[in-house]
Amino acid sequence: MKKKIKVSIFGATGYTGIELYRRLKVRDDIEIVDLPSKSSPGKKYSEIVGSIKSISDEILIEWNPEETVKKSDIIFTALPHGETFDIAKACKIYDKKLIDIGADYRLDKEAYNKWYGLEHRESALIDEAVYCIPELHRDKIKEGTWLIANPGCYPTSVQLGLAPLIDAGIIETGNIIVDAKSGVSGAGRGLKLATLYSEQNENVNAYGVGIHRHKPEMEQHLQQYTDDNIKIMFTPHLMPMTRGIHSTMYATLKKDISEEEIREVLKDKYKNEYFVKVLDKGIMPHTKWVYGSNFCHINVVLDKDTGNLVILSVIDNLVKGASGQAIQNMNILFGIEEKKGIENIPLIP
Amino acid sequence: MKKKIKVSIFGATGYTGIELYRRLKVRDDIEIVDLPSKSSPGKKYSEIVGSIKSISDEILIEWNPEETVKKSDIIFTALPHGETFDIAKACKIYDKKLIDIGADYRLDKEAYNKWYGLEHRESALIDEAVYCIPELHRDKIKEGTWLIANPGCYPTSVQLGLAPLIDAGIIETGNIIVDAKSGVSGAGRGLKLATLYSEQNENVNAYGVGIHRHKPEMEQHLQQYTDDNIKIMFTPHLMPMTRGIHSTMYATLKKDISEEEIREVLKDKYKNEYFVKVLDKGIMPHTKWVYGSNFCHINVVLDKDTGNLVILSVIDNLVKGASGQAIQNMNILFGIEEKKGIENIPLIP
Amino acid sequence: MKKKIKVSIFGATGYTGIELYRRLKVRDDIEIVDLPSKSSPGKKYSEIVGSIKSISDEILIEWNPEETVKKSDIIFTALPHGETFDIAKACKIYDKKLIDIGADYRLDKEAYNKWYGLEHRESALIDEAVYCIPELHRDKIKEGTWLIANPGCYPTSVQLGLAPLIDAGIIETGNIIVDAKSGVSGAGRGLKLATLYSEQNENVNAYGVGIHRHKPEMEQHLQQYTDDNIKIMFTPHLMPMTRGIHSTMYATLKKDISEEEIREVLKDKYKNEYFVKVLDKGIMPHTKWVYGSNFCHINVVLDKDTGNLVILSVIDNLVKGASGQAIQNMNILFGIEEKKGIENIPLIP
Amino acid sequence: MKKKIKVSIFGATGYTGIELYRRLKVRDDIEIVDLPSKSSPGKKYSEIVGSIKSISDEILIEWNPEETVKKSDIIFTALPHGETFDIAKACKIYDKKLIDIGADYRLDKEAYNKWYGLEHRESALIDEAVYCIPELHRDKIKEGTWLIANPGCYPTSVQLGLAPLIDAGIIETGNIIVDAKSGVSGAGRGLKLATLYSEQNENVNAYGVGIHRHKPEMEQHLQQYTDDNIKIMFTPHLMPMTRGIHSTMYATLKKDISEEEIREVLKDKYKNEYFVKVLDKGIMPHTKWVYGSNFCHINVVLDKDTGNLVILSVIDNLVKGASGQAIQNMNILFGIEEKKGIENIPLIP
Repeated sequence: MKKKIKVSIFGATGYTGIELYRRLKVRDDIEIVDLPSKSSPGKKYSEIVGSIKSISDEILIEWNPEETVKKSDIIFTALPHGETFDIAKACKIYDKKLIDIGADYRLDKEAYNKWYGLEHRESALIDEAVYCIPELHRDKIKEGTWLIANPGCYPTSVQLGLAPLIDAGIIETGNIIVDAKSGVSGAGRGLKLATLYSEQNENVNAYGVGIHRHKPEMEQHLQQYTDDNIKIMFTPHLMPMTRGIHSTMYATLKKDISEEEIREVLKDKYKNEYFVKVLDKGIMPHTKWVYGSNFCHINVVLDKDTGNLVILSVIDNLVKGASGQAIQNMNILFGIEEKKGIENIPLIP
Repeated sequence: MKKKIKVSIFGATGYTGIELYRRLKVRDDIEIVDLPSKSSPGKKYSEIVGSIKSISDEILIEWNPEETVKKSDIIFTALPHGETFDIAKACKIYDKKLIDIGADYRLDKEAYNKWYGLEHRESALIDEAVYCIPELHRDKIKEGTWLIANPGCYPTSVQLGLAPLIDAGIIETGNIIVDAKSGVSGAGRGLKLATLYSEQNENVNAYGVGIHRHKPEMEQHLQQYTDDNIKIMFTPHLMPMTRGIHSTMYATLKKDISEEEIREVLKDKYKNEYFVKVLDKGIMPHTKWVYGSNFCHINVVLDKDTGNLVILSVIDNLVKGASGQAIQNMNILFGIEEKKGIENIPLIP
Repeated sequence: MKKKIKVSIFGATGYTGIELYRRLKVRDDIEIVDLPSKSSPGKKYSEIVGSIKSISDEILIEWNPEETVKKSDIIFTALPHGETFDIAKACKIYDKKLIDIGADYRLDKEAYNKWYGLEHRESALIDEAVYCIPELHRDKIKEGTWLIANPGCYPTSVQLGLAPLIDAGIIETGNIIVDAKSGVSGAGRGLKLATLYSEQNENVNAYGVGIHRHKPEMEQHLQQYTDDNIKIMFTPHLMPMTRGIHSTMYATLKKDISEEEIREVLKDKYKNEYFVKVLDKGIMPHTKWVYGSNFCHINVVLDKDTGNLVILSVIDNLVKGASGQAIQNMNILFGIEEKKGIENIPLIP
Repeated sequence: MKKKIKVSIFGATGYTGIELYRRLKVRDDIEIVDLPSKSSPGKKYSEIVGSIKSISDEILIEWNPEETVKKSDIIFTALPHGETFDIAKACKIYDKKLIDIGADYRLDKEAYNKWYGLEHRESALIDEAVYCIPELHRDKIKEGTWLIANPGCYPTSVQLGLAPLIDAGIIETGNIIVDAKSGVSGAGRGLKLATLYSEQNENVNAYGVGIHRHKPEMEQHLQQYTDDNIKIMFTPHLMPMTRGIHSTMYATLKKDISEEEIREVLKDKYKNEYFVKVLDKGIMPHTKWVYGSNFCHINVVLDKDTGNLVILSVIDNLVKGASGQAIQNMNILFGIEEKKGIENIPLIP
């Protein structure tokens, strides 16, 4: 019998941590080793996360990065920014793999310090990190790495839509408008007035207009496809739903090309991908069509009247936008079939 | 005692009709005369609309425009497009007032025929109609009219945000992007798979991208403020909520001006308005903050990095976006205090 | 011009406080004097409650019961239990009226101490308090009082359904089962994991089974209608919605009587009431049919197969179950038309 | 390589059919053969069910029971009652297996005719059918059968809670009250006013009080555990959520026994079951804790004040309450590991 991969999760009681656990726990090739907790060590995991009562009596253990790292083959961190520095250092020292679902290795040092308002304590490791949306960057993992910066939820949906179009020189990049709509789970499991049921039900509002931290992430990682300057106007909105991101993007064309030809560029790019589907003309993506799954649906509309190309892209923020993609990255890292554990069809209705 | 205004409603069993009825029924200056119904004449209104059980036993009567018009001082039509022609004609003949909450008198004849795919049978009356968002056009009612074209829900939220900025020559008008999010009630009470609870819960999707009928309505009625050509890229989305519209609009500046100065232009424009509030810097409008009310909240963000001005505007689609505004228009038409019957503070939570 | 009634609200930033304010603020016979706040004195009310931006710039003031009471004709308290003692004392001293929407004057002293786990510091005042659901107890206010104990949300829906049946000797009272379902706003505006959007969306759960504090309130106040002992099995549930309570009650018959006769007893009891409607045979109450209103809908089903009488009663927990009823009580107290300010028809959809 | 099981689904475009397909499609031991459709033959499945775009281009074929049955090893029917008669007959003739997720083989002939108002055309087959909740009746499948009557959603949640208690002689059975709350998906994908988003959002209502067709199903299949007459008062309610059933059941004790002892009876009964979890004292089941999974959570509360035993049971109506259980039954029928394809941990949040 093949040896199981030993996995530990820092941050298992948050929403991305839960999604990670529920998918890894039922796999026969993985053993979950440690679930360290700062706030509730010694408690049952199922006491903090009700659904876990279905499956296990695991105990959350003390937060001791070095000890946990030593026992594991791979570490997942699903933590607020700034909380992975010691964990990454330990992984480096003990030669273990790390997938950071948080934001600590997505930006270059300068941008990190500016946008996260925090001095990066392990900034040398940023250069060793591979930022990876598999459909765009999986080759970089195959070149070898121990540290993967798992992309943000909004940036995943946006880059899957825009990268092939920028790469093909189809759209102008100096003022791409990204109007994104997210379910409330994207705001995390912390206690905030704004995410109470009675506050967010029947409510839509924008937040962080032009200043959300996912803006520099999109710009930095899309820059590789062009010599032109990438500038993104990013407006995220909270929606009264739990899961799902819908990114509606607006760009002007750089060359004369039809909607059909543009769609063909996307279809061709993703023709061998299990998780990314480019829809047929006139079929608009629905967040519900990817709910609870690692899929991404994309389509484009070319508006002749104004000259805008509208790119629409939907994902489940906790799966393709976080933990599903992290597992996809782990599978690549370990040479496992890429879709293992995340192949499920969306949950409808 | 003052004589009551005699009101009849065509389309009382749809969502805008219900909102109209619930606000007019409790007024002491109004008498509801007829509620004609094509599908359920002879039935109790409360049989079709459960909440009405609280208040009345009125019977839906036969659909006979001429008879109903003769008995009434004013008619409200809350009907699908193309269904008001005979009613409008009867109002004209019998010298009665008409407020059409539907779409039959909002566009000029040519645009109507093109966008609604229908020959307008009473197109001569279009020229007699006053299209009226009171905060923008109330003077036109005061000049005298019998026929008011009540604006669409999306166009109301959009024009309240854009009109003062176009009028002041602040924004370029050749490619204004309007990314709008609407609650499901905007899709009406008809039976459609897409508006079933289990289909729309936990779902966001765009529809009618670039081809929604509210696009020419916005363009036509904003054109009065500028000699430049107005072009709007309009992308509506359905949200998993019942009421509310959030319009996020993107424009580039025509002149050098600060965010504060732009906000001041809006604040100045609406300084005496009860229903339109321009929020302070950094406070983003929430649809819930206007839920169940006739209010509109607006704010702007100037993004220095990309040069975009973002204008955000929220209303309740069934109140300020339909029946509340219709009552506001009626109040003006009859010289009643403009906010009578619609002055209520939003329903929170 | 008639002098306005001077009202102050302790707890204006909670959900019941907001509902109270939004209804009182637009009345022409009321002046809102003080909005004292423990947590945010000096801040604008609209900063804490977004919808208030529509209407006012009032400032929350320091928490000084004596000062506030002296300036007011009537005080509303919408506070957690145990926080009204000093306010009530001040009202007594300065001869002002008080309506406590909280729980401090609903139970006799012994029951209060037991169920609320707290020594009542002003228990002498309990005897002066009138517990009042107007449709059941309005005469007691008319006999004269200064202190009204506004009933709890669940107990209001339950007593409106059961009181006439117990009074008429129709049902056995030794084991009445009350299975109640409430919207999340009933859990208040405090920060709790259980009331986060992502936790409560798509969720139903029971809580406080048999030990909820509204159980003794129902039992104590229903006892007046019978010499038999009243025992209630009370199971409240949280529903994924903001407002609304649906109480489903099960009792066995004490005498031979038909469903029609039982419905007639209820219809007769409420025949002159504006707010309570007994529905026709087979029409089940819907919480949405009373949403945002002070109405209560009731019906009964007699199940011949098992002998159970099912009584179904719905209200909006924040209106008839809290602030709407408080205003109804205030109107009675001041001899104003009982439905003033709360007469609105439910908000549909 | 092992031969795949050939499966066809009648009713694949309804909610239970979709759930069935999404779970079977990704299995390596199953081949989906036919998806017959009465309303949309020739169309792509993904055209009718958006989420299917993620995975397949299968075409819905003509409705020809005999042809489909001949090609398949096992048939699933997810159809309205009365629509499986010809399909069952064909399965009998061609010696194929059938799992009916619908209601046609759950009741004895007499009860079927009475409660479904329909003459059963293949009533002889009812006697050959095995009604199977695996945790209660899996031995009957192992004795051999070709036709499984998959239990209804409400009856599954109810029987899992009650069967061990009746079997152990713990509760009186003459008047068990079942107050159940269901998500809207239980009402199906047909177009009905009552299941429109805007009608059911923020709404709770009871329906079919005492006369729902799941009542005789519960009574008939619980009768096997006792000689006493089983009588159930069944009140189902619709909740504003998509998935989930919460059954709150009330019974009186037949013997002197503590809450702990009763819980122990349940824990013992289910101690080797993967899908049924009896929660610890004081932990109330949440429908969200089993969302999107085949799990059932159960707990009990003994209320000393009234003598009631409250039994609380939650499932996902489309999984354990329909298609998940159908797959569990298929696995047993074919000697496959019982949890294959349905082992996933609930989707949280």
